[in-house]
Formats: sequence, C-alpha cells, structure tokens
Amino acid sequence: MLARRAAILAVGSELLTPTKVDTNSLAITEVLNALGIEVAAKAVVGDAPDELAAHIRMAVGRHAVVVITGGLGPTEDDLTRDVVATVMGRPLVEDPALVEQIRERFTARGLEMPESNRRQGQVPEGSRVIPNTRGSAPGLWLAHDGGVVILLPGPPSEMRPMLEGPVREWLIDHGAPAHLIRRVLRVAGRTESGVDAHVHPLYMPWAHESPSVATTILASAGVVELHLSAVTSDAEAGQALLHGKVRALQQLLGDDVVSVDGRSLSQVVGDLLRAQGATVTAAESCTGGLLTALLTDVPGSSDYVDRTAVVYSNEAKREWLGVSPALVDAHGAVSGPVARAMATGALAHSSATVAVAITGIAGPGGGTIAKPVGTVWFALAHRTASAVKAVCCRFAGDRAGVRRFAALTALDLLRRHLLGVPLTVDWRVPEAPDA
Amino acid sequence: MLARRAAILAVGSELLTPTKVDTNSLAITEVLNALGIEVAAKAVVGDAPDELAAHIRMAVGRHAVVVITGGLGPTEDDLTRDVVATVMGRPLVEDPALVEQIRERFTARGLEMPESNRRQGQVPEGSRVIPNTRGSAPGLWLAHDGGVVILLPGPPSEMRPMLEGPVREWLIDHGAPAHLIRRVLRVAGRTESGVDAHVHPLYMPWAHESPSVATTILASAGVVELHLSAVTSDAEAGQALLHGKVRALQQLLGDDVVSVDGRSLSQVVGDLLRAQGATVTAAESCTGGLLTALLTDVPGSSDYVDRTAVVYSNEAKREWLGVSPALVDAHGAVSGPVARAMATGALAHSSATVAVAITGIAGPGGGTIAKPVGTVWFALAHRTASAVKAVCCRFAGDRAGVRRFAALTALDLLRRHLLGVPLTVDWRVPEAPDA
Repeated sequence: MLARRAAILAVGSELLTPTKVDTNSLAITEVLNALGIEVAAKAVVGDAPDELAAHIRMAVGRHAVVVITGGLGPTEDDLTRDVVATVMGRPLVEDPALVEQIRERFTARGLEMPESNRRQGQVPEGSRVIPNTRGSAPGLWLAHDGGVVILLPGPPSEMRPMLEGPVREWLIDHGAPAHLIRRVLRVAGRTESGVDAHVHPLYMPWAHESPSVATTILASAGVVELHLSAVTSDAEAGQALLHGKVRALQQLLGDDVVSVDGRSLSQVVGDLLRAQGATVTAAESCTGGLLTALLTDVPGSSDYVDRTAVVYSNEAKREWLGVSPALVDAHGAVSGPVARAMATGALAHSSATVAVAITGIAGPGGGTIAKPVGTVWFALAHRTASAVKAVCCRFAGDRAGVRRFAALTALDLLRRHLLGVPLTVDWRVPEAPDA
Repeated sequence: MLARRAAILAVGSELLTPTKVDTNSLAITEVLNALGIEVAAKAVVGDAPDELAAHIRMAVGRHAVVVITGGLGPTEDDLTRDVVATVMGRPLVEDPALVEQIRERFTARGLEMPESNRRQGQVPEGSRVIPNTRGSAPGLWLAHDGGVVILLPGPPSEMRPMLEGPVREWLIDHGAPAHLIRRVLRVAGRTESGVDAHVHPLYMPWAHESPSVATTILASAGVVELHLSAVTSDAEAGQALLHGKVRALQQLLGDDVVSVDGRSLSQVVGDLLRAQGATVTAAESCTGGLLTALLTDVPGSSDYVDRTAVVYSNEAKREWLGVSPALVDAHGAVSGPVARAMATGALAHSSATVAVAITGIAGPGGGTIAKPVGTVWFALAHRTASAVKAVCCRFAGDRAGVRRFAALTALDLLRRHLLGVPLTVDWRVPEAPDA
C-alpha cells in the first residue's frame, strides 16, 4: 500500500516570472486526490541544477509519491532527467527501443532526428518509460522502496494523457485504491474567529480518530467555509462518516449554516424563493447593484428576480420609491426609517413577494462620528406581513470591501428572513437607534 | 547589499486543492524582480507544521530573501508565526501595542476582540511589524545575518498594500536600490491578440535598447493592459523614457486607449461625465446590476449616478420603462428596438443626461440559432440628441464571463459615446439587424 502523501514539482524558469502560473499541478492534484493521495506540498523551480536537486531530495525524503513536470526536452536547459538520476543514485543508460521510437516520430514527419534528441532516450537505470503519444519527451516512472518518482513533460497537452492514462493506472496497481471524501459547510453572519471559537472543541478530536477527519476554515467577506476531508479505503463508509460530522457541525451552528452541499449563498436564497413561490425585489443605494448582481449570478434567477432599483440620490429614492424628503431630513439617508421606507416603496413599485433595501456609507468619504464609514442599514418588507424589519450593521474595510460585505449580508438577511429565523449577524450594531 | 535571490512560500491547505492557484507569488515576483531580486523557487504548503518547517528551513538556508504568505490568522490552523519562530530560534513574545491595534479594529465595528485574535499580537522576538491597514493580521519582517524573512497575510487585498508599500521600501533600505519605472496603458474594445498584432512590431525592439523596456500584455474580460517597465538607476531618465514609449503606443492605438495613468475604465468614464457636467442612468437586463456596480465602484460616483434600474422581466421593462409588449413580441426582448426603447425609457424616467441599456442572453439557457448565448444588444440615448445608438455584440464564455464582458463593454461604449468617436469594438456583430 502506497503511503498517502505526495509532492509535486514543476520545473522551468518561465514559471517563476510575474505572469505565469503552474497549472499542471492542478490536474495532477485532481488525479492524486481521487486516488486518496493528498498533496502535501508543491513547488516551482527554475532551470538551476542545485535548486532542483535540493527540492527533489527533500520531496523524495518526505513523500511516497513525487511527481515532477517539465525539463524533459532535448536541450541543455532540460535538466530534470540528469538531476533525478544523480539524486536517486541511478546512472543514466540509453534505452535503444526508446531512441528508436523517438527517431520514428521524426521519420514520420519526413525529418531526421537531431542528435540532441538522443538525450531523451537516456533513462535513469531501472526506470519504466511512460509513453508520450503527443510529443517526443517520454515520461519516466522510478519505483523505489518507499514509493515512486514520476517524471512527466511540461506541455499540458502531452502531460495530461500520460497522467490520466498510465500514471493513474500504475498508481492503482501500486496500491492506491483509497478515496478522498470531502464536504464543505458554508456559514454566514459570523466572523472567522467567531465560527472557529464555536466549533473548535467539536472538530479538534476528529483529527485523532481513525480514519481521521481534517478540518480547514476559510473566510471571505461575509461567508466562512468549513472544509472537511477524510481518506478511506471504503468510499461509502467515508461518506457516512463525513455525513455524521457535517450533522454535528450543523447542529452546533444552527441557522448560520447556509449550505452543506456546496451551494453558494445566492443559490440557497434562490432555492428558498423558488420553494416558497416567492419573488424578490431590491432597492440598493451604497451597494450600487451588487446585491442584484449576486442574485442574478445564478442561472434561472429570472424565476424569482423581476426588477430591482439602484437609488443613489435622495431624489431617486423619492421619485422611484416614494421615500419622503421629510423622513430623509429627520433621520438621514442612512437610517432605519429610510431603509424601511425604501423596502416598502420597492414592494409597492413591483409585484414581488419580498423587498430588500440597503442604504449605507461605503466610503472613503461621507462618514461621521455617529455613522462612520461602513455603517449600513438593511430593511426587509414582505407582502403578507405588515411589520418591516430593519437591521444596522458596521463593516470594516475599504470601499470595495464594505460594498461586497454589505451585498452578501443583505443576501444572508434575506435567507434568514425566508427561513423565519432571527436576523442575528455578528456585525449587527445592536444599539443603533431605529425610530 | 542584499543577495539577489529569493524564495516565496504560500501557506494554506486550500492552495493544494485541484481548483486553487497561489496568485500572491506573482505580485511578489513582480515587486522583487523590479528591485533586481530574482525568484529562485516558490512553493505551496498546507497547514502541516512539519512540512512548513522543512520548507522554511530550506528556503532560509538557501536564499537571502524569503517571503511567506498566509497562515497569519487568529485560528489554530494559522501556523506560520509559530513555525517561523521555531525555525528561526526566536521565541514568540506579545507586542502590547499590536494587541491594542487589533482590539481597536474590533472596537471600531462595535465588537469585542475574541481572545483568539490575541495570537495575532504575538511576534517572533526581534521582528518588526508591517502594519496591515485592511485586516487584523499584521505582517512581520525578520532581519537576520544573511538576509530577511518576510511574513505577509494571505488575502491579496491585505497583502498587496503591505508588499507595495513598506516591504518594497524596507527592501530598498536593505540595499536593493534600483528603480523600477512602470507605466500601464489600458485598452478597451479589442481582443488581446488584436492589440498584440498591432503593437508588437513597435515594442519588440525596445527590449534590446539600453535601458531595456519590457512589455507585458495582460487581458481580462473587455480590457487589455499593456505594462511597460524599465529598471534604471536614474528615476527621472526612466520616467522620460517610458513617457516617450507610452506616447508612441497611444498614437498607434488611438481611441481604443482608455488611460495611460492607471485609471480604470470606470474612473475614466466618471471623469468624462463630470467634465461634461453630465449624469448617467442605466437599464440593465442580462448584466443584472453589474454595470451600475462598476460605475459606482468609484468614490464620488454619486456626482454622476443618480439611479438605475435592473429590468429582468418583460413586465418590468413595460411598467418601469414603457417598453411596449408589441415591440418585444415583434423583435424579441434581445433586439435593437427593445434596447433603444429601454434607453429612451430610462432617460424619460430620470433626469440623467445619457442612458445606457443592455439586453442579452447570458446563458447557459435561452440561446437560439439566430441569437446564441452571448448575444447582447446595447443602446445609448442622449438627452440632447434625437438619435439613439444601438450596437449588437457577441461574447464568448460562461454566464459569469458574458455578464462581466457585457458590463465592461457597456462602459466602453459609454466612453466612446462621451468622446464622440465611433462605437467600434472587436466583438460587434456588424450584420445584426436593427429595425
């Protein structure tokens, strides 16, 4: 049975410039993960033999599977074969059948094989050739006690068929039948550290169970993701295991859980609207269309989005939504009463079931001591309810951050409203006056 | 004088999945290269302390500059600080001023600092704090005999200002004294290959002049960027050199040049509107608010954006903009006549000087042979002109790509309209019928 950790190395100076990324490692990761082999590290090195040797030595010393791409061409820059031979203590030997194959590729195109391509027929002693059907650089498979080192050419069109064909097959033959099971929980309305403080005691012991369940927390504006993964030889048992863990987290986090099946916040809100036969409209001020853009990100969103308005100026709020100037004068455009009036007005000017209104200060200017930059009022009006809910939040960050955070929070408040649960989010300002 | 080789490490298990790439290293490479520091290797490691320690040990042992991103958050996953402290033999000590700063970030949002965030106030002995103006995770600068280890947070919005500000400065203080002069030309309405074919003969020889001027072309939906850079010891001469090159490119590309001073398309459109004392409104269908979101990205955009409407359904187009159902029946919702009627209606329902309308098929469904997915009609109506301009474009890509491309094209068409130049863009469909 192959140990379950791998390292990936990409070789080539062009991958160390400011505009190129190594994408081969993504395809390799996908194939390895599907076999239950986790990628522990990946690296990019240039065409420098000492640097390459140091990385190969570390990778082989630490991980059972090492996949190296690039540097297998015919020129002197192409060092991978030589450096691997040295590090692994396997002298290069010419493989006559391989040289013949390479020569035939040239002959078939009416060309003579350049002498430099002969280099590609040299392989570290004891290695197995991985045929390349799309180019002249063969791949190499070097099994050793502890694992295997796999050399693949850099061009993705040559690398991928080799990876998805023989490499995958030989890894299975080598005893890599395990499965990686993954689940993602999306959580809204909570800070990353808030979520972690809450669930940490629950998931900590999971890492030490057998099979162990690894947990990672990722945060972006407004949404925290909990990634669970387990490696197991029994896919069904693995699914059941993670299912139980997901349940436990769900129970702990309650209404803050947006989805446990990979759906985005926009998709979840869309599905709730569709299930309730409801439609939504919006009146956006500081988010300038971002809430609507999020809502309509989802294919088929025209089922529940009919129209929305961006009302930036007070005149627009008055003329389009009937927000009275007296209200704005009395409370300011960024206030609970104005948010409520915007939501009510949006409902009156559409046939939607529910209306979301947003008015806030995105910055950089416009903040005051009482209402600093990042202060945003939200309101929710429902056609079948007389009460209009309003919530004040305060967001950190620059203009783009406040706008994005506010749009996602509006979506989350809409989700909570549709679920009929309290509109509690961590960035709510509880003491905000709401006349 | 700092030795001129660096290693970059990105920390985070999410960067080892099949779908994520580390892009921070590209920005870091750019800044380092500009200071004459070459990147010798880069690596991605997960949240595993032993793996991280092995990589840091190797990087510090081999290279004078080591930049590490990620893993500086408040949770137990965030190991970078601890592992660096161990590897460098510098015990962690609490920095009271730093803890206070972090606490203030929470207080400003009306929150109490979770105890876990206190971790972020611990720094390896002797390190210098790199202030983070966008988030709670401070960066760290650990000078040692042979060089420096630099820790930066993972989120690009936090990392970049720190990299381009203090890190760059301190590296120069540390003996990386070259000047990198940079200029960016933004070009709209043209494909990347179209721009390149046009300007390639001009810029090719520049790479071989002394000092040499490097040119990089970067493309994102709708906008192509030409980055020029030169490394020189005389900043003023370098500025003059690039100024001349920018002029030459501008002459060649004409109206397609959006800006030569770093302004975004949104900013350029905003500046044109402001200069003309004009205001803009929009009627968006398939872009679902994205055009308005782009327009209002710019601080102070309330000077020229008053209100816009997202009119997804035909009823919304009729009720809010007066688009007649007969017109929709005769030509379809995605057509020149409907786009024109939307623009005229938007003008009538606001006091804006100019109205932009967008109606198209973002997909994945809804395409036909005559109007495949990606077909988008744009119209521009001006209060002082009787003619309403309409343009049909066809965009490639998925739903998100078509929507983003269409919103940027609408902005560019508005720019061309305000400049009084023809609405010619590469993706215009010239044969589209426009009754």
